[in-house]
Amino acid sequence: VSAPVSAPGSWAVAAGDPFGVHNLPYGASADGRVLVRVGDRALDLAAACAALRTDLVRLVEAPLLDPLLAAGPAAWRRLRTAIHTWLTDEDHRDVLGPLLHPLERLELVVPFTVGDYVDFYASEQHATNLGRLFRPDAAPLTENWKHLPIGYHGRSGTVVLSGTDIVRPWGQQRGQDGPAFGPSQRLDIEAEVGFVAGGPPTTGPIPMAEARAHIFGVCLVNDWSARDIQAWEYVPLGPFLGKSFATSISPWIVPLAALDTARVPPPSRDTALLGYLDDTALDPWGFDIDLEVDLNGRVVSRPPFASMYWTAPQMLAHMTVNGASIRPGDLFASGTVSGPRPDQVGSLIELGTGFLRDGDRVTIRGTVPATADRPETGLGDVTGRVVPAPSRAEAR
Amino acid sequence: VSAPVSAPGSWAVAAGDPFGVHNLPYGASADGRVLVRVGDRALDLAAACAALRTDLVRLVEAPLLDPLLAAGPAAWRRLRTAIHTWLTDEDHRDVLGPLLHPLERLELVVPFTVGDYVDFYASEQHATNLGRLFRPDAAPLTENWKHLPIGYHGRSGTVVLSGTDIVRPWGQQRGQDGPAFGPSQRLDIEAEVGFVAGGPPTTGPIPMAEARAHIFGVCLVNDWSARDIQAWEYVPLGPFLGKSFATSISPWIVPLAALDTARVPPPSRDTALLGYLDDTALDPWGFDIDLEVDLNGRVVSRPPFASMYWTAPQMLAHMTVNGASIRPGDLFASGTVSGPRPDQVGSLIELGTGFLRDGDRVTIRGTVPATADRPETGLGDVTGRVVPAPSRAEAR
Repeated sequence: VSAPVSAPGSWAVAAGDPFGVHNLPYGASADGRVLVRVGDRALDLAAACAALRTDLVRLVEAPLLDPLLAAGPAAWRRLRTAIHTWLTDEDHRDVLGPLLHPLERLELVVPFTVGDYVDFYASEQHATNLGRLFRPDAAPLTENWKHLPIGYHGRSGTVVLSGTDIVRPWGQQRGQDGPAFGPSQRLDIEAEVGFVAGGPPTTGPIPMAEARAHIFGVCLVNDWSARDIQAWEYVPLGPFLGKSFATSISPWIVPLAALDTARVPPPSRDTALLGYLDDTALDPWGFDIDLEVDLNGRVVSRPPFASMYWTAPQMLAHMTVNGASIRPGDLFASGTVSGPRPDQVGSLIELGTGFLRDGDRVTIRGTVPATADRPETGLGDVTGRVVPAPSRAEAR
Repeated sequence: VSAPVSAPGSWAVAAGDPFGVHNLPYGASADGRVLVRVGDRALDLAAACAALRTDLVRLVEAPLLDPLLAAGPAAWRRLRTAIHTWLTDEDHRDVLGPLLHPLERLELVVPFTVGDYVDFYASEQHATNLGRLFRPDAAPLTENWKHLPIGYHGRSGTVVLSGTDIVRPWGQQRGQDGPAFGPSQRLDIEAEVGFVAGGPPTTGPIPMAEARAHIFGVCLVNDWSARDIQAWEYVPLGPFLGKSFATSISPWIVPLAALDTARVPPPSRDTALLGYLDDTALDPWGFDIDLEVDLNGRVVSRPPFASMYWTAPQMLAHMTVNGASIRPGDLFASGTVSGPRPDQVGSLIELGTGFLRDGDRVTIRGTVPATADRPETGLGDVTGRVVPAPSRAEAR
């Protein structure tokens, strides 16, 4: 169950906090604790379960979220309901209060073992903008774009936690006459929303109506991109080294249940879809998540996730329609979120104000805005600082 | 150390057996045993180490090869030397003989946790042949092809063991007017050689001269491909569902040391390479491995791995030149092996005799041929049978 809209007050967090008991995102610390964020603190879940003598401890005693992800929706509901009860029932204050740790004292880690990482390309505006830049002589949207959510596999081994420094990558680029080689001069960001798969390993196809059982939660993603490396390498097999040096994710995985009230219809589509992607009869699966791209302390763009053409259930249905299996910990991201306005784009190449310089810090924040019916819900942020490329000697 | 060319006789396996003590590939069984293949039997390594009271047991007591992969070259050499000694020293026959299990009694599994799976495109003939078919109006080799080993990430979660049935995938294909949807009618194989990464996780770049410390061994790969799905989806971000339904690997990972005498120079190249890929001053890193593609009991092609344009150290150097890390268990495959002759191609689309029908069985075998100086070395085989696509109802 999701937390009720008019939740009872919590003894642990102020009313209206974006990380109140309507949110309750999960994370993990370097010392092996599974955590749930409550305001500016985090509850040690294994310690809480032990203190309260509940068998829910089996979901949270591992160093990472992996067993919780694998346990599936019934377990997710049970744990979430229990945590909600603990934090709203004054009787638990004495036992659980000491188990709430200030965030600044915690060293967080990527909270789950990343299986396969797939990056989609689900924003019509972004695909149009990039198509114009990468293929100026062709139609900006390829002929398949409105028929399927285009995606590709990225490198799961270089998914890193928010805060990790991003080393400017070396690589081949198009030179005057053949390739050049050097540090990327067109280092970029991609502001995205990621979906963390859960439930037992499942063989596809997974129909859209069953998506909920296979998506544990949501995080923010910055899929750092070296546009010069990408432009030279990507024909014919797609992006590779222009992306594989680093993908940053936010530390707190917001459970899908916390986003129930944020669901909105996707934009209207002008192209009929094949049955497995036709969501006209489904509940809406867009999300009213506002992103904010902050470059060195200045907000340079505000990409609206609600503008995405393809939804998470469509991505999941497409990704598995060929029988491919999905595992808990698989991560699939939306692709760059770009809205229709110039101040809503999710990458610097679209913004047109130049690429990243050494020392630049990029922070992408995400929030579900408050409405009359719900408080604001925080997705936190994903941040990273660009550090100089290694010298040629260090690069060996 | 690799086994000496004129190895002493083994009490466990006949002289000249392709899986003699010069080979000694590793595998794992479903009941959690780490194995080394000796002729038509496999030695239970944890039991052997326990019986012989050696601390090598720490490398082989896990259910998979993961700790051995992570342990690195010194440990690989020590274990291989020990096994070689055990199997050639008659004194060990009484203790180890009972720990040799006939292969037919073992249920094998994918013997390591697959990290990232990367598929390259390293055969000039294959890339030329496919370029002609997929892009008939353009030069068959893209302008980047001779400057870098093109590759892309595949789906590690659908890497399956040889013998696993391959379900014909459903998917979108190009129709008369927009997309069609149905079971693939152009189901194909790709005969490849795969390299299994080992050693501790390492941040790139990994120079070619250090490749040996990061490659544990070699297996055979069949990267099943649905050409109709691939053709419709692959622009602009590369192959996705046309590949992600299944990739089969052979069960026995041949240690790199067993292939020392099989190393041959790669074909001569007509394009100068950037420094990190220039291998002219290195020892040769091609491999004299003969593949054989068997379709329903008939050998239809004999792809020569020695014809590959790009070598494994070049792939590894390129894959990490941007700083990407590599982990033990990462798998990178060569891409389809196609030689210059029509009877040497590694895919059916190149062979031109039609695609796979339901019930077809494909077996790819690999051997290093015997020479005056060395016995034949077996890589075993990777096999799979095509089973019909699920009905639309089963596909939900």
